[in-house]
Amino acid sequence: MAKNKNGGSRASSKGKLKVCMLGGLNEIGKNLAVLEFGEDIIVIDCGLGFPDDDMLGIDLVIPDVSYLEKNSDRVRGFFITHGHEDHIGALPYVLKVVHAPIYATRLTCGILKNKFAEHRYDTEPELRSVEAGDIIKAGCMSVEFIRVNHSIADACCLAIRTPVGTVIHTGDFKLDLTPIDGEMMDIARLGQIGNEGVALLMCESTNSERPGYTPSERVVGRTLDNIFMMNADKRIVIATFSSNVHRVQQIINTSAVHGRKVAVTGRSMLNVVHAAVELGYMNVPSGVLIDINEIKRYPHEQITVVTTGTQGEPMSALYRMAFSNHDKVQLGPRDLVILSSSAIPGNEKLIGKIINELYKKGAAVIRDSVVEVHVSGHACQEELKLMMALTKPKYLMPIHGEYKHMVHLKNLAMTMGIPENQIFIPDIGKVLELDERGMRAGGSIQAGNVLVDGYSVGDIGNIVLRDRRHLAQDGLIVIVAQVDIENRSVYAGPDIVSRGFVYVRESEELMEQMRMIARDALEDSLESNITDWTQLKSRVKDDLAKFLYNKTRRKPMLLPVIMNV
Amino acid sequence: MAKNKNGGSRASSKGKLKVCMLGGLNEIGKNLAVLEFGEDIIVIDCGLGFPDDDMLGIDLVIPDVSYLEKNSDRVRGFFITHGHEDHIGALPYVLKVVHAPIYATRLTCGILKNKFAEHRYDTEPELRSVEAGDIIKAGCMSVEFIRVNHSIADACCLAIRTPVGTVIHTGDFKLDLTPIDGEMMDIARLGQIGNEGVALLMCESTNSERPGYTPSERVVGRTLDNIFMMNADKRIVIATFSSNVHRVQQIINTSAVHGRKVAVTGRSMLNVVHAAVELGYMNVPSGVLIDINEIKRYPHEQITVVTTGTQGEPMSALYRMAFSNHDKVQLGPRDLVILSSSAIPGNEKLIGKIINELYKKGAAVIRDSVVEVHVSGHACQEELKLMMALTKPKYLMPIHGEYKHMVHLKNLAMTMGIPENQIFIPDIGKVLELDERGMRAGGSIQAGNVLVDGYSVGDIGNIVLRDRRHLAQDGLIVIVAQVDIENRSVYAGPDIVSRGFVYVRESEELMEQMRMIARDALEDSLESNITDWTQLKSRVKDDLAKFLYNKTRRKPMLLPVIMNV
Repeated sequence: MAKNKNGGSRASSKGKLKVCMLGGLNEIGKNLAVLEFGEDIIVIDCGLGFPDDDMLGIDLVIPDVSYLEKNSDRVRGFFITHGHEDHIGALPYVLKVVHAPIYATRLTCGILKNKFAEHRYDTEPELRSVEAGDIIKAGCMSVEFIRVNHSIADACCLAIRTPVGTVIHTGDFKLDLTPIDGEMMDIARLGQIGNEGVALLMCESTNSERPGYTPSERVVGRTLDNIFMMNADKRIVIATFSSNVHRVQQIINTSAVHGRKVAVTGRSMLNVVHAAVELGYMNVPSGVLIDINEIKRYPHEQITVVTTGTQGEPMSALYRMAFSNHDKVQLGPRDLVILSSSAIPGNEKLIGKIINELYKKGAAVIRDSVVEVHVSGHACQEELKLMMALTKPKYLMPIHGEYKHMVHLKNLAMTMGIPENQIFIPDIGKVLELDERGMRAGGSIQAGNVLVDGYSVGDIGNIVLRDRRHLAQDGLIVIVAQVDIENRSVYAGPDIVSRGFVYVRESEELMEQMRMIARDALEDSLESNITDWTQLKSRVKDDLAKFLYNKTRRKPMLLPVIMNV
Repeated sequence: MAKNKNGGSRASSKGKLKVCMLGGLNEIGKNLAVLEFGEDIIVIDCGLGFPDDDMLGIDLVIPDVSYLEKNSDRVRGFFITHGHEDHIGALPYVLKVVHAPIYATRLTCGILKNKFAEHRYDTEPELRSVEAGDIIKAGCMSVEFIRVNHSIADACCLAIRTPVGTVIHTGDFKLDLTPIDGEMMDIARLGQIGNEGVALLMCESTNSERPGYTPSERVVGRTLDNIFMMNADKRIVIATFSSNVHRVQQIINTSAVHGRKVAVTGRSMLNVVHAAVELGYMNVPSGVLIDINEIKRYPHEQITVVTTGTQGEPMSALYRMAFSNHDKVQLGPRDLVILSSSAIPGNEKLIGKIINELYKKGAAVIRDSVVEVHVSGHACQEELKLMMALTKPKYLMPIHGEYKHMVHLKNLAMTMGIPENQIFIPDIGKVLELDERGMRAGGSIQAGNVLVDGYSVGDIGNIVLRDRRHLAQDGLIVIVAQVDIENRSVYAGPDIVSRGFVYVRESEELMEQMRMIARDALEDSLESNITDWTQLKSRVKDDLAKFLYNKTRRKPMLLPVIMNV
């Protein structure tokens, strides 16, 4: 690609663009991109991640935005590609320390508004609704919203004009030639910008391992139609992602065609359906939607129930139905349950548990491994190639994926003729610099995980997690004793209190042995004139740890509480 | 099926056969079947299970065998179908309380011998090696071993003759028409027994959701041959299940053909290869197998490394290679890693982590989702139908599966003409009774999970696990105070010790607030003349719990330690 095409020539010695991801590289979720030129910073997406298995007790993970916090006055805006949690979920937290307007399409704004209502702000967040085609000025840069397809309505990719050339950030996308709302990905506009010259393509890579094209959302509608026809004698319960407005629309349409009423259950599903109907993203034929309390008034086979819980989340509506804990829907042999979703890696066991319970109730179960009741929202290899063919970028940066996804996108790009040295797979916090001479690795800025646990944001660190893992593994033993330092003797105790170690009533002998060992350790130490608390405690811990490991091959956390009388 | 065929007529008023699973129903693993007639009990398999995600700190799960322990003198033998952990893993523990000879084929005996060597016994386990075709007398019953194919060599199903008819227990099986060792499942013998009459088929159901046939193990050999051809310039590292002797044999054969040396790493893999070679289950062309220390002496592309770790197990050889922690094998761009395995549900995230690390090292990775480098060891629907067609059982009991697997097998059986009321899906501990009049549900015997944690077997119960989950979720706070009950005053403290709750150094204000609340609670109580320890502690706990929940939305475990001076 010629220099004058990607705008590089105009920028000679004008400065450089810094590009850095604070999340979304080497991980699924927590997506956040920073683009900086001179005094201007723009942020693309601001998502959350879910905790790894070893982050015990953690609710959410958000990106470390210390860099943005320090430079808050230079942030010209948050530009949001779509309303999924991994793209917006950190915003409610980040807005408390970084103040800048948020630009997003209408549905995304609607979802954000609901989110913000659950938090308190000194300065109210400034939501600015945009439409595909809008171009927003952001200091020396500008951001154009361009329609893409995805598993949520109103999704966009972004074209960012900078003094050193155009950057395309794909957000998450797929190409749907027959979208439910008629709004196809704006291929023409992407091609036009590609012809004008694109310096850098930041391209999502989630499905880069999958060949071919992702099927159209409409395929699910056809499958549902078949299933409804074959199961005319059953009540149908369908679980899906609440944000997939088009999926819910198709369930409603199919139900209407087959003379069924639709009842919605599950808090997030109710929220989304109401927001989508209100904002005009969903059309419900009159009389089709009924309250979940009304389902009793209709024959079983005239009811469709739409619900959440596709990932086996405990306490979701589907989970409660499976475990006979839902007060409105009791499942039995006259029910068909459809899981219109795919399993997110790590959730297979939870989902399996629910499916087993559904079968135990005698319900029939249909899921995506058997028939096409779900399609992905992400671009497969042919769509990724199309994106590269349209935008013809000089440089490529795979984003939104684990390392394997990014490396597969890199390999794909090389088959499209992008040279290896023009493809960058950095890590979060690593800065890429783009100027008229080209792109290269720059320095780095602070990046990482900020853990959210209840109301606490960021006060849970590695030490706390390490302790939780230790406690989870083998439990805890507290050794309580009063000593008489003056007289070098044990005054009272030691007593042993244990939690999560053994069932105490059946282990009295062991508890007694532990008491003896702790007492010996204390008496020995005091007789040897050891009166330093730290040393006394260490001795008790060491002796007990050794004894317990030999006896039980376990290492509970040992917590001596020793006081002077 | 006529009564005189299944032997029912001969048994008139002679008694009844009791059939009960102590594990392997509604779960994968922990397989153990009990067959009892009059004074005689036989046990089929004695396997372990792996802990669920919420069984924190637990190493293994074994079946509750209290019933066998109480009736140890009536147990005529353990009959083992094959040498996988889920069929033999509990034996080392169960043999300490139930004394009876163990009957198993030669390879299974070899694996068991190694296992027993790691335990101590008052009475040495009595291992009796059998061959397919052998019939063992066991009181009024007899057990015939019949060859089947599976993902471990020397696997058998069992035909048990009882006074009320023949029971077939399939163990785990598949049909391999081109098995590596030439030993095909003995279809003829099963057909013969079927013609004589089978009262009950206890049939595994693990793959009952999958249509068609499971491919032959030989398919993997062909795939490997192609991969070796295409990657002649690379070192090849192959991870697989150590017990799959035939898989390892094929890797060795393919390596030999392509002029490669084979080095084995990973403790369990070394054990199995040595045992299999020694017992004649593996043929290694001379000079092909080399020690892992010798790989440096050969060109990179002339080496195959066989290893364990396909499930992402931390500290397995593959894990250590991926994380640069293996002292003999350092991976890089000239390596190809093959995962010759499938992911056991629940392990996807761990495996994904390893694959990402391998890619980061520049290695190429091939796994079963892309090409056929793995085949299952379990019967798919057509093979399950074949088993039913051959044995023509009057009654069917699906075993070795989650509920969904058993229900799919039931549905399959009904398409084969077995009436629904002749198919039984019980739970563990539920007894089925078979006599000349037919089969029906009987009573139940004690059954459940016995948890193994380190050296402890069974002393970890629900209370301990509940405490571990509580500690894992939000950590622990110990409140230490000395009070002067006589004078109704707080003498020293309260002090707050926390673990796994917050990073203390950054939460001094919170710690101070907690101290104040605990002090107020104690002083208030003492002033109100509350001197009962339980009441004092409750008050401190309640006040602190309320404060912490409001302040942090967390519920750490609270442990007040209050002493009188």
